[in-house]
Amino acid sequence: MKPTHRLFTFSVVLCLWGCKPAVELDAPAIKTAIQEVLNQQVKDWNDGSVEKFMRGYQQAETTRFASGGNVSQGWQTVFERYKKTYADKAAMGKLTFSDVDITVADQDAALVFGRWRVEREKDVLSGLFTLFFRKTKEGWRIVHDHTSAASKN
Amino acid sequence: MKPTHRLFTFSVVLCLWGCKPAVELDAPAIKTAIQEVLNQQVKDWNDGSVEKFMRGYQQAETTRFASGGNVSQGWQTVFERYKKTYADKAAMGKLTFSDVDITVADQDAALVFGRWRVEREKDVLSGLFTLFFRKTKEGWRIVHDHTSAASKN
Repeated sequence: MKPTHRLFTFSVVLCLWGCKPAVELDAPAIKTAIQEVLNQQVKDWNDGSVEKFMRGYQQAETTRFASGGNVSQGWQTVFERYKKTYADKAAMGKLTFSDVDITVADQDAALVFGRWRVEREKDVLSGLFTLFFRKTKEGWRIVHDHTSAASKN
Repeated sequence: MKPTHRLFTFSVVLCLWGCKPAVELDAPAIKTAIQEVLNQQVKDWNDGSVEKFMRGYQQAETTRFASGGNVSQGWQTVFERYKKTYADKAAMGKLTFSDVDITVADQDAALVFGRWRVEREKDVLSGLFTLFFRKTKEGWRIVHDHTSAASKN
């Protein structure tokens, strides 16, 4: 090997060993992708489908839903809780999210905070949510949901 | 400049342009640092000092505390809320955290989930918390706190 080539190889190896590709964090694109998941969830909820709404959560045992003093652990458990709490379209009412604030932490992680509101024939439920999103191979998915409810008026 | 030097310079420039230092994510060290902040908060709370407890939160306008349907925005507002809700040592009681689960998202971001419990002379309060920690120049600090309370028994 010529000295020139040796030096080049050495430089490349040094680069690969000490560096990783500088992927720019495209926060606006990530925020858009996450907002789309939330919009789809609202649409699915208002179509009366808890099943489709659940596509926003990662289908994993580690997926977690917390409210009050209770934790539902695992996608299936979260699904069962939603089906029990919101048994039919009347119970589901009309969902809206507002004041949604997305903090991109990394290429594959983001924190989302906002307000939720469910208007039903007989009452209105509302409160706050903190979501932790991860980029999975299926796309951006909720892996942690901490929801709290305002006192009913 | 000799061709050899030119090639070396070219390689280095290419490396600096396309790469960034590959800092390994030291999750165990980050978890330890965050656990220390939480331990200190518990100690300060049980010493009856809301002021010292508040050192766990980033002193910034962006610091946020959510519970029920209410949001306290800014470190000072969060502080005022704590002082009002827990006016003296008797009201503060004895705080413990349990089931603390730390997810490191990046070098400077982590999600923390756990249970809190306040034992007082006359009652016991308890619930769940989701914290978003960022590494600030002062160290790891809470920038977002979503707390919920279990129904009292």
